[in-house]
Amino acid sequence: MPLGLSFSGGKDSALAALLADSFFDVTLVTATFGVTDAAENAREAADALGFAHETIELDRAVAEGAIERMVDDGYPRNGIQQVHEATLEAVAEAGFDVVGDGTRRDDRAPAVSRSVAQSLEDRHGVQYVAPLAGYGRETIDDLAGELLRIETGPSERLAKGDYEHELRAVLADVYGESAIDDIFPEHVQSVVRGRRE
Amino acid sequence: MPLGLSFSGGKDSALAALLADSFFDVTLVTATFGVTDAAENAREAADALGFAHETIELDRAVAEGAIERMVDDGYPRNGIQQVHEATLEAVAEAGFDVVGDGTRRDDRAPAVSRSVAQSLEDRHGVQYVAPLAGYGRETIDDLAGELLRIETGPSERLAKGDYEHELRAVLADVYGESAIDDIFPEHVQSVVRGRRE
Repeated sequence: MPLGLSFSGGKDSALAALLADSFFDVTLVTATFGVTDAAENAREAADALGFAHETIELDRAVAEGAIERMVDDGYPRNGIQQVHEATLEAVAEAGFDVVGDGTRRDDRAPAVSRSVAQSLEDRHGVQYVAPLAGYGRETIDDLAGELLRIETGPSERLAKGDYEHELRAVLADVYGESAIDDIFPEHVQSVVRGRRE
Repeated sequence: MPLGLSFSGGKDSALAALLADSFFDVTLVTATFGVTDAAENAREAADALGFAHETIELDRAVAEGAIERMVDDGYPRNGIQQVHEATLEAVAEAGFDVVGDGTRRDDRAPAVSRSVAQSLEDRHGVQYVAPLAGYGRETIDDLAGELLRIETGPSERLAKGDYEHELRAVLADVYGESAIDDIFPEHVQSVVRGRRE
């Protein structure tokens, strides 16, 4: 079955792709607002993993709605959730019969509840899959350490392929550079460089 | 990593084993009250799939507590949940570092919530995994159809390996044959006969 898996170039979506690889015909799909080179970074990570890759354009209004929500909230969670759901919708509309992502059991945002999954499936006539949904953080760290070559570092320094990277750029564009530190907590992120042999 | 996966001989736990097979050293584990040949049926299914198999004895008091709950409730859900949680505890106590089962995204019973999973992990120092938790019914039916040779039929006629089979026997023993129809709805179940090539 052809699976369009939302892909950021990070550890979770890369591991989800490896778990799904034996059972689906996986294409990694990166959603982009076209404001940074995030999609190009994701494509490099997909190439290094040996997966097909597609880029999907999201409307800049989705980014602007999300950062407005983040600024109102003072934290990024709900805005990121909005962009993630818009991404899954876009992958479904791009014609994949099965739509997936790298959300984990313990994720707070983005998180795809059973009702969000069912709604996506019913409205688009697709199947939604989350290969990592049955795994906790420790198991995922163990599997990723075994299977992936990963580079970690602070969010703002890694050449990431995810929409958070672009949301930061749009946020800085609209609200100024200082808004990034107000909204996004400093944390270490990961970029995938390939598989371990 | 060695994974002890609770196994009934049915479609879901067999598919969970196949999904986990590339990433874990899988042993299929069947919990039994020793009142029917359920564990022997499960062992045959495990052999047909090519997996290692172990049997774990559960105390008959667990079965009696569960059927008391079912009779009080008038439906089996909570009693089955009790036995499932007792099974996961027993697999953890048997020394597996990773404990798993075939619960699906849409399962109502047994279901392992995030808090039940976290509690199991914390108390036993194990990792809990549910390889099918990120997949809905339609996807699981598609994958099972592609990967497994399955025989289906009414619950009471198939030589099943799961604890529901044994719970029915204990229920009949304590409350009489007619109690089975009062508590368990008639439904079609599956027994796995092997892999598709």
